Amino acid sequence: MDPLPITGKHLIGDVEQGEIDPTFQGVDPRTGAPLPGAFAEATARDVEEATLIASQASHLLRGWSTARIAALLEAMALELEANRAQIVALADSETGLGTVRLEGELGRTVGQFRLFADIVASGEHLGIIIDHADASSVPPRPDLRRMLIPLGPVAVFGASNFPLAFSVPGGDTASALAAGCAVVIKAHPSHPATSEATARCLIGAAAAQGAPLGTVNLLQGRTHEVGRRLVLDPRITAVAFTGSRTGGRAIMDLAATRETPIPVHAEMSSLNPVIVTAGALAARAEAIATGFVASLTLGAGQFCTKPGLLLLPHGEAGDDLLSDIATQLGAVAPAVLLNRGIHDLLIDRLQASTSVGGAQVLLDGRDGDADGGFTCRPSLITVDAQTYLASPELREEHFGPVSVVVRHSPGELLHLIAALEGQLTATLHAEVEELDELEPLRDMLSAKVGRVLWNGFPTGVSVTRSQHHGGPYPATSDSRTTSVGGTALERFLRPVVYQDLPDALLPPALREHDPLGLPRIVDGVRQLGRPA
Amino acid sequence: MDPLPITGKHLIGDVEQGEIDPTFQGVDPRTGAPLPGAFAEATARDVEEATLIASQASHLLRGWSTARIAALLEAMALELEANRAQIVALADSETGLGTVRLEGELGRTVGQFRLFADIVASGEHLGIIIDHADASSVPPRPDLRRMLIPLGPVAVFGASNFPLAFSVPGGDTASALAAGCAVVIKAHPSHPATSEATARCLIGAAAAQGAPLGTVNLLQGRTHEVGRRLVLDPRITAVAFTGSRTGGRAIMDLAATRETPIPVHAEMSSLNPVIVTAGALAARAEAIATGFVASLTLGAGQFCTKPGLLLLPHGEAGDDLLSDIATQLGAVAPAVLLNRGIHDLLIDRLQASTSVGGAQVLLDGRDGDADGGFTCRPSLITVDAQTYLASPELREEHFGPVSVVVRHSPGELLHLIAALEGQLTATLHAEVEELDELEPLRDMLSAKVGRVLWNGFPTGVSVTRSQHHGGPYPATSDSRTTSVGGTALERFLRPVVYQDLPDALLPPALREHDPLGLPRIVDGVRQLGRPA
Repeated sequence: MDPLPITGKHLIGDVEQGEIDPTFQGVDPRTGAPLPGAFAEATARDVEEATLIASQASHLLRGWSTARIAALLEAMALELEANRAQIVALADSETGLGTVRLEGELGRTVGQFRLFADIVASGEHLGIIIDHADASSVPPRPDLRRMLIPLGPVAVFGASNFPLAFSVPGGDTASALAAGCAVVIKAHPSHPATSEATARCLIGAAAAQGAPLGTVNLLQGRTHEVGRRLVLDPRITAVAFTGSRTGGRAIMDLAATRETPIPVHAEMSSLNPVIVTAGALAARAEAIATGFVASLTLGAGQFCTKPGLLLLPHGEAGDDLLSDIATQLGAVAPAVLLNRGIHDLLIDRLQASTSVGGAQVLLDGRDGDADGGFTCRPSLITVDAQTYLASPELREEHFGPVSVVVRHSPGELLHLIAALEGQLTATLHAEVEELDELEPLRDMLSAKVGRVLWNGFPTGVSVTRSQHHGGPYPATSDSRTTSVGGTALERFLRPVVYQDLPDALLPPALREHDPLGLPRIVDGVRQLGRPA
Repeated sequence: MDPLPITGKHLIGDVEQGEIDPTFQGVDPRTGAPLPGAFAEATARDVEEATLIASQASHLLRGWSTARIAALLEAMALELEANRAQIVALADSETGLGTVRLEGELGRTVGQFRLFADIVASGEHLGIIIDHADASSVPPRPDLRRMLIPLGPVAVFGASNFPLAFSVPGGDTASALAAGCAVVIKAHPSHPATSEATARCLIGAAAAQGAPLGTVNLLQGRTHEVGRRLVLDPRITAVAFTGSRTGGRAIMDLAATRETPIPVHAEMSSLNPVIVTAGALAARAEAIATGFVASLTLGAGQFCTKPGLLLLPHGEAGDDLLSDIATQLGAVAPAVLLNRGIHDLLIDRLQASTSVGGAQVLLDGRDGDADGGFTCRPSLITVDAQTYLASPELREEHFGPVSVVVRHSPGELLHLIAALEGQLTATLHAEVEELDELEPLRDMLSAKVGRVLWNGFPTGVSVTRSQHHGGPYPATSDSRTTSVGGTALERFLRPVVYQDLPDALLPPALREHDPLGLPRIVDGVRQLGRPA
């Protein structure tokens, strides 16, 4: 198979455009040196052209059947798999995440397209509800038929930390396409070549399936200006973003100033507290230490779901666990961070948090830092509950292999949980025998988070129909939606109801004798669809 | 039955509080004279106390079963019915809408509570999805169980134009309670006594059902300050509003400035275009004229779904329809508007729109205006398509019995539709024989609106599971949600997923052998619930 060309240009409809002057280059995070190839910076005109063609494509996609959209998603999955070797190599050179992790991430990315293909083929996502006319009702009721339709062009921002699963071919793109929306993707400047290669896969598959020009568009750029223009573009109907709290909030604020405000789905920051009870300490301290260290250092601690906060009771058993964690973490090799920005921010955050009075720095990862690459060792800080509650520096997300361990006395745990901001996840390590105390804890945690785990670790977000990767602000911009899992495509759909339309004028999915066999609720009774 | 006391105070938990100094009074819109009784203006402390107790109530309501919530809603419906005579009399004195309309509105309001009771009892709204663990998957998949939980306290703003169905006991309140959220309701100052009476019904029913104190709270006030404090209160988790575009956008902008932004569901403004084809003119001109006039003047034209725009082809058949409409409208008695603010704004808008060069004023309703009450006759303005497109004054919502008729030549209709802002509804009057031309029209319209009607009129929004009362901005703040119909409660729910929890620690609805028989999707297969 011929390798995909990497030109550094934007991919807009079937046009490759962009002045490679001024240019930017990818950077090898292992050395800090520039990578070969140069990339364009999208101009106002590039943004406008991309949103225009995406708007036309969205209009045409509205006529596509669920079967055809499902086939498009499957074709994209195949195309990504066919170019696996090149994609993984490019991503490794640009992110330093290693080929094993990136092979796994590609598998997950491909699986994501296939999950959405299954869901779209089932028609469940159309939310069809039909109420027949009732002349005997007071007042008489008309015939009403509801279904969901795509919003229109979606702006997707690639994330730095998942060059595949949360970037160009990631869940936001896959779910927007599944909903029938064309996408304009702003590539993350940390992995521009990976972005171009994967965009070519999606665009190639779209062309082969006869999808409209502009179904998938890619814009490159290093400045915030490209993203700003995209968010403010009047043709864009929704934004999906994964990244920092600062970046996500800036996009939310910007979108709110539009003449026509649009929904922003930003997945931003999370500490992912892990709570270990006395029962769990007694039963499984060693396994907890090993699991915690593995989860904390996975992907150099650059997961949205990294366990950045461990809540541990005072006492000997807790001391032993902490010491075990520190020993294991101390033996972990220096990790390569994704880019200079993440590296420098982490150093700043550590400067602040390690200086907090009363904080005990068990491991300071800032010393692995002399070879030109963006490397860092794991850091571990421990404090008591009162110091933690009084120290905002410790409660900030440290994006990288850093965790804060808070030791608490009886009665302090609930205060610590009550003081938490919104989180993606919370994890309970406990024993079934402690169940009576755990039920209120489960409810307190679910009021703060999107996912509650039992005796596990929060990294590794399974892509299933049920998965919810979201949570109250600032974990995400809107706790009602998810960026991973089967319901992610609901973000990009809206209902329309048709009143008293002649059967022949109804969209096929809503006709009385539905030729497609889609699932629907009719006069309050759910009818299962006919499997395709 | 003893009448409900009207004290003019706020109803916060089980406390009636508020200084009736400074006071405000209701106004009889038929005369402009003050009504008996005085009402308090909520202070910062009143708002804080209401949101605090609502927050505690929301926490307690989370433990309620679907059956118990359904019983609460049913009890509220009964209590409203039991006080029907007093409520209708108060509402008539404060709104001038007439007892026939208000009896109907009470029936609809009660029906709304019962629809949500049915839906909650079915458990469909919990969105339960279960994926069992799969150790053979790469990587292995944990057990994941998703359900929706209530957001927390909801701020509801009563609307002026529906003192029942979109006010204290309206769809926003009913759907928030159905979701398990306590409410803090800001009464509309145009009908404070109706608001107090209906709030007492809801609070009384809640108490009888053993609901937590503060499940329903009422704040009175005439200034924007009360609403501003409520929207900015950190305990409020969502806002529901029905009213003007100015008011809705101000709330959206305010909520976006919060440290923790929250969803705002504002239903704001709509022209509700009615399109009449040549075929319909030939077949049913008389019925269209009669239906149009009735819909336009219903409730003195103060419906969100009033047909404020009629798109009519040039030519003799169109001329005849227009002349018929003008004749019938001219014979309609002066109508009483809800309050001075609405009256004065309508006069201002008419001043601007009747002055547009090229606009022909067939009826000018500003002359029915001498008796002290807030009366107005219907107005009818006609223009050609080019003038309409060039005149923003004509495209503004005129809240009241006013419609603008735009005459178009072949080819201009699609331009007119393309230039529309987002709308709640659009109506097609056409004949089945014209079907080939109508399909693209249906798609263009559904891209702009939330409900497409065939040969009907947009006023009269049936409350059914399928109903969608929403639409792209500025019709509403978020086109993905509805304020009427079975899915309205989804606005106030968010998902949580539980990973690998022991069965005994799962909420009952998610246990493997669900004692409640709720509907769920298990490993991709939908399972119908056991009827209660």
